[in-house]
Amino acid sequence: MAHKNRIGNLFSLTSFGESHGPAIGGVIDGMPAGVTIDMEQLQHEMARRRPGQGGVTSSRSEPDEVEILSGVMDGVTLGTPIGFIIRNRDQRSEDYDHLKDVYRPSHADYTYQAKYGIRDHRGGGRASARETAARVVAGALAKQVLSQLGITITASQVSQVSQVSQVSQVSPENSPSKLEGGGGSMTHPSQYHDNTNDTPSQGDTYGGVVACVIKGVPAGIGEPAFGKLSAQLAEAIMSIPAAKGFEIGLGFDFVNHRGSEVLDKWVIKDGKISTMTNFSGGIQGGISNGNDITFNVAFKPVATLMQPVEGIDNQGNAVTIEPRGRHDACVVPRAIPVVEAMAAIVILDNMLINRASRL
Amino acid sequence: MAHKNRIGNLFSLTSFGESHGPAIGGVIDGMPAGVTIDMEQLQHEMARRRPGQGGVTSSRSEPDEVEILSGVMDGVTLGTPIGFIIRNRDQRSEDYDHLKDVYRPSHADYTYQAKYGIRDHRGGGRASARETAARVVAGALAKQVLSQLGITITASQVSQVSQVSQVSQVSPENSPSKLEGGGGSMTHPSQYHDNTNDTPSQGDTYGGVVACVIKGVPAGIGEPAFGKLSAQLAEAIMSIPAAKGFEIGLGFDFVNHRGSEVLDKWVIKDGKISTMTNFSGGIQGGISNGNDITFNVAFKPVATLMQPVEGIDNQGNAVTIEPRGRHDACVVPRAIPVVEAMAAIVILDNMLINRASRL
Amino acid sequence: MAHKNRIGNLFSLTSFGESHGPAIGGVIDGMPAGVTIDMEQLQHEMARRRPGQGGVTSSRSEPDEVEILSGVMDGVTLGTPIGFIIRNRDQRSEDYDHLKDVYRPSHADYTYQAKYGIRDHRGGGRASARETAARVVAGALAKQVLSQLGITITASQVSQVSQVSQVSQVSPENSPSKLEGGGGSMTHPSQYHDNTNDTPSQGDTYGGVVACVIKGVPAGIGEPAFGKLSAQLAEAIMSIPAAKGFEIGLGFDFVNHRGSEVLDKWVIKDGKISTMTNFSGGIQGGISNGNDITFNVAFKPVATLMQPVEGIDNQGNAVTIEPRGRHDACVVPRAIPVVEAMAAIVILDNMLINRASRL
Amino acid sequence: MAHKNRIGNLFSLTSFGESHGPAIGGVIDGMPAGVTIDMEQLQHEMARRRPGQGGVTSSRSEPDEVEILSGVMDGVTLGTPIGFIIRNRDQRSEDYDHLKDVYRPSHADYTYQAKYGIRDHRGGGRASARETAARVVAGALAKQVLSQLGITITASQVSQVSQVSQVSQVSPENSPSKLEGGGGSMTHPSQYHDNTNDTPSQGDTYGGVVACVIKGVPAGIGEPAFGKLSAQLAEAIMSIPAAKGFEIGLGFDFVNHRGSEVLDKWVIKDGKISTMTNFSGGIQGGISNGNDITFNVAFKPVATLMQPVEGIDNQGNAVTIEPRGRHDACVVPRAIPVVEAMAAIVILDNMLINRASRL
Repeated sequence: MAHKNRIGNLFSLTSFGESHGPAIGGVIDGMPAGVTIDMEQLQHEMARRRPGQGGVTSSRSEPDEVEILSGVMDGVTLGTPIGFIIRNRDQRSEDYDHLKDVYRPSHADYTYQAKYGIRDHRGGGRASARETAARVVAGALAKQVLSQLGITITASQVSQVSQVSQVSQVSPENSPSKLEGGGGSMTHPSQYHDNTNDTPSQGDTYGGVVACVIKGVPAGIGEPAFGKLSAQLAEAIMSIPAAKGFEIGLGFDFVNHRGSEVLDKWVIKDGKISTMTNFSGGIQGGISNGNDITFNVAFKPVATLMQPVEGIDNQGNAVTIEPRGRHDACVVPRAIPVVEAMAAIVILDNMLINRASRL
Repeated sequence: MAHKNRIGNLFSLTSFGESHGPAIGGVIDGMPAGVTIDMEQLQHEMARRRPGQGGVTSSRSEPDEVEILSGVMDGVTLGTPIGFIIRNRDQRSEDYDHLKDVYRPSHADYTYQAKYGIRDHRGGGRASARETAARVVAGALAKQVLSQLGITITASQVSQVSQVSQVSQVSPENSPSKLEGGGGSMTHPSQYHDNTNDTPSQGDTYGGVVACVIKGVPAGIGEPAFGKLSAQLAEAIMSIPAAKGFEIGLGFDFVNHRGSEVLDKWVIKDGKISTMTNFSGGIQGGISNGNDITFNVAFKPVATLMQPVEGIDNQGNAVTIEPRGRHDACVVPRAIPVVEAMAAIVILDNMLINRASRL
Repeated sequence: MAHKNRIGNLFSLTSFGESHGPAIGGVIDGMPAGVTIDMEQLQHEMARRRPGQGGVTSSRSEPDEVEILSGVMDGVTLGTPIGFIIRNRDQRSEDYDHLKDVYRPSHADYTYQAKYGIRDHRGGGRASARETAARVVAGALAKQVLSQLGITITASQVSQVSQVSQVSQVSPENSPSKLEGGGGSMTHPSQYHDNTNDTPSQGDTYGGVVACVIKGVPAGIGEPAFGKLSAQLAEAIMSIPAAKGFEIGLGFDFVNHRGSEVLDKWVIKDGKISTMTNFSGGIQGGISNGNDITFNVAFKPVATLMQPVEGIDNQGNAVTIEPRGRHDACVVPRAIPVVEAMAAIVILDNMLINRASRL
Repeated sequence: MAHKNRIGNLFSLTSFGESHGPAIGGVIDGMPAGVTIDMEQLQHEMARRRPGQGGVTSSRSEPDEVEILSGVMDGVTLGTPIGFIIRNRDQRSEDYDHLKDVYRPSHADYTYQAKYGIRDHRGGGRASARETAARVVAGALAKQVLSQLGITITASQVSQVSQVSQVSQVSPENSPSKLEGGGGSMTHPSQYHDNTNDTPSQGDTYGGVVACVIKGVPAGIGEPAFGKLSAQLAEAIMSIPAAKGFEIGLGFDFVNHRGSEVLDKWVIKDGKISTMTNFSGGIQGGISNGNDITFNVAFKPVATLMQPVEGIDNQGNAVTIEPRGRHDACVVPRAIPVVEAMAAIVILDNMLINRASRL
């Protein structure tokens, strides 16, 4: 569950920070006590999120050093809240003076102004993707706990066209659960353009799809009705900047199949009940069934082009906005660790909540 | 925000009920005081959700009479919680005796058993789509409030292939915001099968896509970071039984376009800032921009076939399950009022929350 | 944690109902699965709350039959939400017609009107003590779970003056933890009037103090900072109608002692760390220490007198209100099971939350 | 509503920090946009909380400089979350090495250890009163908003015995609402020792009562059932370290009076409905009635004496703990701004929530 700037229930993150304020950060509440934190691993996750992933670079180069301020003593969690900050260092706020009274197209400039009557125009303010750094901190800690519970989360950009074609012929042999690494449960076969190796032409940008596979979640995780694991994942993932679509298992491709084609038939694997296929994406009735949990996320093209675009000022006048600095042409490579982080927060929260399911 | 069997914050629904228990129902907390309730309209919404929509019928015929137990006096809301129940009358629970120790494929039988160590096997228990009746009650009341605020919510099944083709050529003239009625912001052009007029053959089932358009939401609704309106809608919608995908605006189709093609350019309409196109689906940075909010939902085919299917019993033995009674071949027609209900709950909740945005 | 008409987090009650509407009731969410419910015990708790306790009677005689609508099958909890209703049968709503536009002194008539612009004037509406019946239902179920965990909750009216005097001489031998039954941790020695055996004279009313002892809570229950067990108990208890004071352990009497007099010295009991005295009331730093949790609650005199009182109408005119029907002269006997219920809800919720404290 | 380290709903504080970690701090979510922050006033509130108030000094001298990291631009709130930190500078952590495996009497050492299996033993860790600095930050901002709404909050130590005596003779002329400054709604007349001018003798400590008066809250604030304003205040106040009792209006003293003596009779003041007396403390049925809201809080004596005390180590051996450093002999002077802060958080949150009461 999320509310404003907080997500999660027993394990929660409350985050803060504008792109060009002094710092971003957050409070992680509900981290179980007694967990040894691997700070190197945490900084590794931060590095995955930084600009310049996948050969596509942005102008801002933050060291993104996470300073943990509480909740950890001698590297071990205390069970108390973990406060942390990441200083904003490479700000160049003056780069944004020309945007003070201007609303860029397809940005949150106008919507924040409409909501609050005021906004921080520098680098997108609170709406900047910079806030995702706080998500990665919480996600990295969640992952470390999940790892001890035998759960791993791996996201990757959908790109391998050949595998995608296989999926479109739905059958037990090449069902989504068989496709790992290259595509997870890729479900929009004919439609996706393989843009992994594209380079931005003429300052243009593009989006992409991220597939995520969560392994090791036991059967029984998630809640009935509104607290379905699929719903919680949808909320968490769709709260990532630029996320515009979410699907679980076969997702939208379910529409192209009859019920008889996409039932997940039962099988006994290693003495345990499992399914032959995994069209459901590991969740039935909102509760995990023990299979891999698989979902896809669609990200729109980055709205900041490196070419002149037309904006509007707060008086309603058209304004041409010249590109400044450098920006990512595609958000997807950097979004991958964020997708994993959000999934990790949801899964850990639900693993903890589930401890109360039975007496 | 949702947690277990509750959704919403200032305006919330907490629901209860198994398909074959004495009743289902819920508590609507936070209904603003002083609203005159139109009970006829409410029952009309209930009728839209009942089996037998669109010529496709199910065996169960519930009158679905809503009994309001509190929070309303002389037809006007008191501001206090509205408790309500709907009796389960046409139950035929003995129809389900053969499922007591059997897990049907792609149902929640096994996952509930794994979670709780016990389950109500009759008609799907808590996982039955019957629980959506409570959603429609809350949604109907929310809609009546929203209507006074000038907001309407209309969902419909995606079917008009001709319009769909138009959308695939993205341009200002035929952008999603122009497509209403037949398809909302239809975004998966090549892929959807028009199954509206299909009849179930050989006891098989199918799914479908529902498009939803919300008109009249002012700019500024939704919260930053985790409380994005798009994220809250995703959670609410994906909590509907059988929902497997959610996309907002162009959604997954964003992937097929360059940034320069899908920026929503500004325009002054009726003296107000608006956009020429609406690829964003009315939400930027998680906050409404005043345009129509448009999203699509994918529903999987109904998992209960009217033909023999293979299940497994709790000892791991394969079991053939013969069809009994009659069931919907497609959930989509009945899902439409549920989609509208969940959207209404989210929008009203956020309209109320937004009252606190400024001093 | 509470919000509007809901209390609790993992184990929660959302209640509804006006005194003279069709029914009151609620939804209990988070009841652990697999618990056998003793309905007789539940009805016994309901009987304890009914008018006519302690020889002091009120006019209304409700059978208070609890109808459980979901979440229980064959007497065993399913883990799904438990919806329940209690019909309002003996209503005599016309008795209240004269109060439609009148605000009684020290009642919630005016405050509800001021908040909502409308109110149900019949029998106090939502502000009636009748809503506590829903609390007792949830509390009775919570108690049944707690009982299996070795936890008991006993409230009683403070009355034995002799014991009270002892407490005022604080010493290990007669510290609060030694006083059970008659007074728990009675802490306002000189001040309380023993009104247990009083009879209402001239239609007047009186209040009283309820002491509560919770036995068997293990050390470690409660949360840091804002979620202190003492704070959660205070909130839950102070939400009971007519509750005006709450104190834990020595409470207000701490003020009369030096620190050196009221430290709870350590001792090893049965091989476990414990304390010789229990001035702290079983909670230190907001977290249980394994000792009895003891607290007191002050209830104000019933505001409905059986003698004429002066009210005011909504035009500002003084109005004399003649007594009608019969009412309790003292709320305390009926409040006892409500105090126990609220304590049970808080303790069970925290027992469940605590399962997530460590990996 | 509170949960773990968070309090509040629309306006909330999530805090973090151990006494001897790098910093304490928090996130204030839901601060309305467009409020000009007076940082000087904020630091003034911090200074009121620092050791050394009222001539009684503690050894630790922190400058308590609040660094605001987000949510404010050019001194004006943005509506986005306000992250802040206060560095811990004057730590002397080695002073606490002798307490690593020792549980002090009436401290939270043992309870934290029992809960988490680990604890920060330095200066009380998370259980230290140092965490209240974060409360004062949020409270100071809430007060600045409330001030614009015409609401003021004033707490003070109960001490003027003469006024106290007056109160014990309850009558309209000297009812609680008449007593300001010196005692608010002082309600335990005979029992309180006036210790304002006491000096600690022989390293001993003492507690005290704080009375708080909130002026300017309009009628209609607070929620029904569990969200009563009195309940929310009780929770917030009882979450302050060392708070052991809470009472509203006449509180425990209600017990000493008949109903006919303590009805708050109506009167028209300045054309508005008001009451002649204020025994209710400004709240009826959990909702404000427009009068002053008055409550008292009891604080226990500081548990850290400046004389040797007996502790126990984690092996069960008795240990004598010698006093080190200097500590406050009475927590009450420093608690006053914390009481005000917690009250301010609750009142602002409820003022915002109430905006949704009516359409």
